[in-house]
Amino acid sequence: MTPILGANQYGKAESRVVRIVRDTARHEIRDLNVSTSLRGDFAAAHITGDQSQVLPTDTQKNTAFAYAKIHGVDSIEDYAIALGGRLLEATPAADQAQVRVEEYAWDRLGDHSFVRRGGAVHTAVVTVTRAGVHVISGVRDLVVLNSTDSEFKGFLKDEFTTLAEADDRILATSLVARWRHTTAEGVDWAGVDWNASYADALDILLRTFAGTYSRALQETLYAMGTALLESRPDLAEVRFSAPNKHHFLVDFSGFGVGGLTNDGEVFIAADRPYGLIEAEVTRADAPPAGDAWLAVPGFC
Amino acid sequence: MTPILGANQYGKAESRVVRIVRDTARHEIRDLNVSTSLRGDFAAAHITGDQSQVLPTDTQKNTAFAYAKIHGVDSIEDYAIALGGRLLEATPAADQAQVRVEEYAWDRLGDHSFVRRGGAVHTAVVTVTRAGVHVISGVRDLVVLNSTDSEFKGFLKDEFTTLAEADDRILATSLVARWRHTTAEGVDWAGVDWNASYADALDILLRTFAGTYSRALQETLYAMGTALLESRPDLAEVRFSAPNKHHFLVDFSGFGVGGLTNDGEVFIAADRPYGLIEAEVTRADAPPAGDAWLAVPGFC
Amino acid sequence: MTPILGANQYGKAESRVVRIVRDTARHEIRDLNVSTSLRGDFAAAHITGDQSQVLPTDTQKNTAFAYAKIHGVDSIEDYAIALGGRLLEATPAADQAQVRVEEYAWDRLGDHSFVRRGGAVHTAVVTVTRAGVHVISGVRDLVVLNSTDSEFKGFLKDEFTTLAEADDRILATSLVARWRHTTAEGVDWAGVDWNASYADALDILLRTFAGTYSRALQETLYAMGTALLESRPDLAEVRFSAPNKHHFLVDFSGFGVGGLTNDGEVFIAADRPYGLIEAEVTRADAPPAGDAWLAVPGFC
Amino acid sequence: MTPILGANQYGKAESRVVRIVRDTARHEIRDLNVSTSLRGDFAAAHITGDQSQVLPTDTQKNTAFAYAKIHGVDSIEDYAIALGGRLLEATPAADQAQVRVEEYAWDRLGDHSFVRRGGAVHTAVVTVTRAGVHVISGVRDLVVLNSTDSEFKGFLKDEFTTLAEADDRILATSLVARWRHTTAEGVDWAGVDWNASYADALDILLRTFAGTYSRALQETLYAMGTALLESRPDLAEVRFSAPNKHHFLVDFSGFGVGGLTNDGEVFIAADRPYGLIEAEVTRADAPPAGDAWLAVPGFC
Repeated sequence: MTPILGANQYGKAESRVVRIVRDTARHEIRDLNVSTSLRGDFAAAHITGDQSQVLPTDTQKNTAFAYAKIHGVDSIEDYAIALGGRLLEATPAADQAQVRVEEYAWDRLGDHSFVRRGGAVHTAVVTVTRAGVHVISGVRDLVVLNSTDSEFKGFLKDEFTTLAEADDRILATSLVARWRHTTAEGVDWAGVDWNASYADALDILLRTFAGTYSRALQETLYAMGTALLESRPDLAEVRFSAPNKHHFLVDFSGFGVGGLTNDGEVFIAADRPYGLIEAEVTRADAPPAGDAWLAVPGFC
Repeated sequence: MTPILGANQYGKAESRVVRIVRDTARHEIRDLNVSTSLRGDFAAAHITGDQSQVLPTDTQKNTAFAYAKIHGVDSIEDYAIALGGRLLEATPAADQAQVRVEEYAWDRLGDHSFVRRGGAVHTAVVTVTRAGVHVISGVRDLVVLNSTDSEFKGFLKDEFTTLAEADDRILATSLVARWRHTTAEGVDWAGVDWNASYADALDILLRTFAGTYSRALQETLYAMGTALLESRPDLAEVRFSAPNKHHFLVDFSGFGVGGLTNDGEVFIAADRPYGLIEAEVTRADAPPAGDAWLAVPGFC
Repeated sequence: MTPILGANQYGKAESRVVRIVRDTARHEIRDLNVSTSLRGDFAAAHITGDQSQVLPTDTQKNTAFAYAKIHGVDSIEDYAIALGGRLLEATPAADQAQVRVEEYAWDRLGDHSFVRRGGAVHTAVVTVTRAGVHVISGVRDLVVLNSTDSEFKGFLKDEFTTLAEADDRILATSLVARWRHTTAEGVDWAGVDWNASYADALDILLRTFAGTYSRALQETLYAMGTALLESRPDLAEVRFSAPNKHHFLVDFSGFGVGGLTNDGEVFIAADRPYGLIEAEVTRADAPPAGDAWLAVPGFC
Repeated sequence: MTPILGANQYGKAESRVVRIVRDTARHEIRDLNVSTSLRGDFAAAHITGDQSQVLPTDTQKNTAFAYAKIHGVDSIEDYAIALGGRLLEATPAADQAQVRVEEYAWDRLGDHSFVRRGGAVHTAVVTVTRAGVHVISGVRDLVVLNSTDSEFKGFLKDEFTTLAEADDRILATSLVARWRHTTAEGVDWAGVDWNASYADALDILLRTFAGTYSRALQETLYAMGTALLESRPDLAEVRFSAPNKHHFLVDFSGFGVGGLTNDGEVFIAADRPYGLIEAEVTRADAPPAGDAWLAVPGFC
């Protein structure tokens, strides 16, 4: 029996790169969490311990910091493309570099003062291969809630079903979404305004969530995905991972208080368990994804 | 040897109370995390297992949800005063009820749609006694950063000191602050606009952080505390717990790239260890705190 | 442009199922975290909001609790196979049920008293299809450390490389590993002693980690995977996700203390960034994995 | 109005000190999380920004690492006493040094190989003053469960009470406990076997938890505290913070399965809200605590 080395990748995860632009008295800040992985022919490192083809993860980290200066961080997508390209160039044995970036937003307090915004985090997963580049943008921790216009009924029932049908419930989720940019021959990545693209996508997702009457979280997600693809022809597909953050109506009926009712006004926000709805919406003529989604954590 | 029961308290922690106000088509949301503790003569419950004077923690939870409807949540301070008063009234053996509330802010997307804001969390610790009420308001997770106008030098040195003096560094913290409202005879708590008070305090803290040249985080905290007390005569004291979120300048000197320098532009945001600066600023003539700070977690 | 619904799945995540076996005065405890997902033709739920083919996630949760009694929990693998089979049976539109289970170990204090062990968590991912069953067992949070017999040198260098070669360093990781059981026609899953299989696999991993001189974490992982496959012919492949938990030697050279040296004795355990090494070792003649690994979070 | 600087302290939190003893081929490991705080006259640092009396938190961190070698880590209590003494000596303006240490336990796999045990964490809070030393030992994350011999009934009821009385329930908690060692004149701290003391205390707590019929968590805590003080005359008092980790019996009555019952066999482990029971048991003639508990996070 000879075991075989299968898929493998290695890199440095979660370098917390903070870039201050201080060319004028009015500073700018970009606050990133950067992870890189190299893939390719690293069999020797695994089987004989020969590291001669292995660019250390420490070097990958150094490069991530250096490129925040050398290339700069106009957008996380643009920075990731440059960083991935550099790592691939520096590592002959690699055939792919995946760069994953999260960006934490800050609001301005003054010329050199900032307060962290919190809330949704902008994400990017860029895969640079010898043949081209895949770019996936996304968002996580986008917590949204509709306090009405949500129902859940007419569902399949078996002997373990005790859930009552709901005509009017809270719908809430902490959304993870990722959308893949079209990879076509001749695409000039350098011309893309990634920040504008992200802001527009986020706006479409939020407006569709707010404006959609929901018969299930599945329907809402599909509507969001459809709206995104219809508005942005530069996107090939979108994936969602959406925990159903249950808000249960609190039962006041046992309280000995005359006239006390709970007409959709007081809820308990539950932690676990939670529904978990995951779905992909794709364009019929989307170019193939290749390895764009390889080793992306979870459904998306 | 007879052991003695010392200080004790019991209650229900972290009830996630969500209140939707739906009197009109334009809904409002208040999203709270509520914890209550009762203190008093509960020796029998501990020593003989007699529960006859113990209002169950489950009942405390029920009351927290019911009061979100019965009393409502105009502000977390106001709600906590009402809830604490009720729990004390319902429990003859108790002499104090402490109510701790956190509020998570949401931004509006539509008439009944919201997106969670993230960032700073508004907090309150209210202690209702048979003699009166203590109110402490506060904030946590207020992450602020100055990218210049911060130094640290002239410090005490011993044989373990290796830190270089810094003329220009990043100053950043994830602030916890709490401020005690004056408890004077004749104070009419019902007349206070708690939300306006909180917004004003937060604004003072942010503006002072941004506007203060810092020779140490201690100096910045003291300036913030002083500004708050000077602006708001209704506050008796303020306490801070401020982790120094270190941003270390990345050393580019070892990189073999001609002309590459790091002039305060690229930093690594470190996790642990971190400096931890804690301080209280108080008004000279502040009325006594009594048990206002009893069992508040940590320094503040 | 007509968007198309792509891959999708839905279910209930993180039901915390605790099973007490109390047939005798000497109780047993099984403490589980159970997640289920159904896959299949659920287009109507997404596109028109028709839920008639959707078994609610609430029902999936109920079934998870009921099956802890009806089927019992001899092992998490056996329980997951039964639960997945039931969910598939109850949902005509589904063609796959994935059941993910984690088990938290407890040590016995008395006949009905237990203390939670902490440390490594036993995991299982079972995928039940209309054609058969895939079983992946695994472990997470297995934190191991070698205080010597680890080096890292001879690596690829570029202009961003500043790492010194190391002859003797700490090697530590918090291992996630998953191994796929052979799916062959005629496999009688009912006859497998899953708990014994897990205990043996864990023992092989630990002994190999401790007994392997390491020229890189990659080499150690490959040795562990090889040992596992060589010892257990019932396994087809194993996957590892291994953060390199860096322990940096603390530099004492700047301290003004005569004769003070740090000869591999005092380290700082770092949080972020961390190396992340991921690899698969497979048997050359392994039967195909099919959808066994579909939507398993991360590399493994 | 002149604001006054009140209580204050500063230091370095969460230095992750790992000490390998490698005098022989059979290595030993001590894995610590160390936090220090200095208190005293640091008004100038706050008010005028004068740092001349401030020993940097960076130096405190360096000292924590150096003392793992210079003094060694026979026990975390002993190490903390030495470290606190050193910091006080190095800082004339300080009158107290508080050192907080957590220790993570490892099990041996081989001469230089270890696997982290998980579970309970040994803690110490040592306060060194110019007049003497306070030592508090403790444990956190001690998760214990009794599957019977626990009831809760006869409690106070009001109009919000809906809880049913329970004759037989699961009792579970994730215990935080701290116990103060007697500070008497002439106590020779150097002669204490802290590790043996901790092991004995932990054993008493576990045996008492397992052996006590419980009419409420309060009664169980009091029994544990009493047992500890009765067995160990060197302890002055003990404090507990005990979340009541609710395990709710799952209701099978709505399931359409003939004969299916849940006789205390299947529970859901709930996250939030949770009961929180906190109590202190003290010796009647305990010497005064002084500042031993100052700024200990939470109730204990």
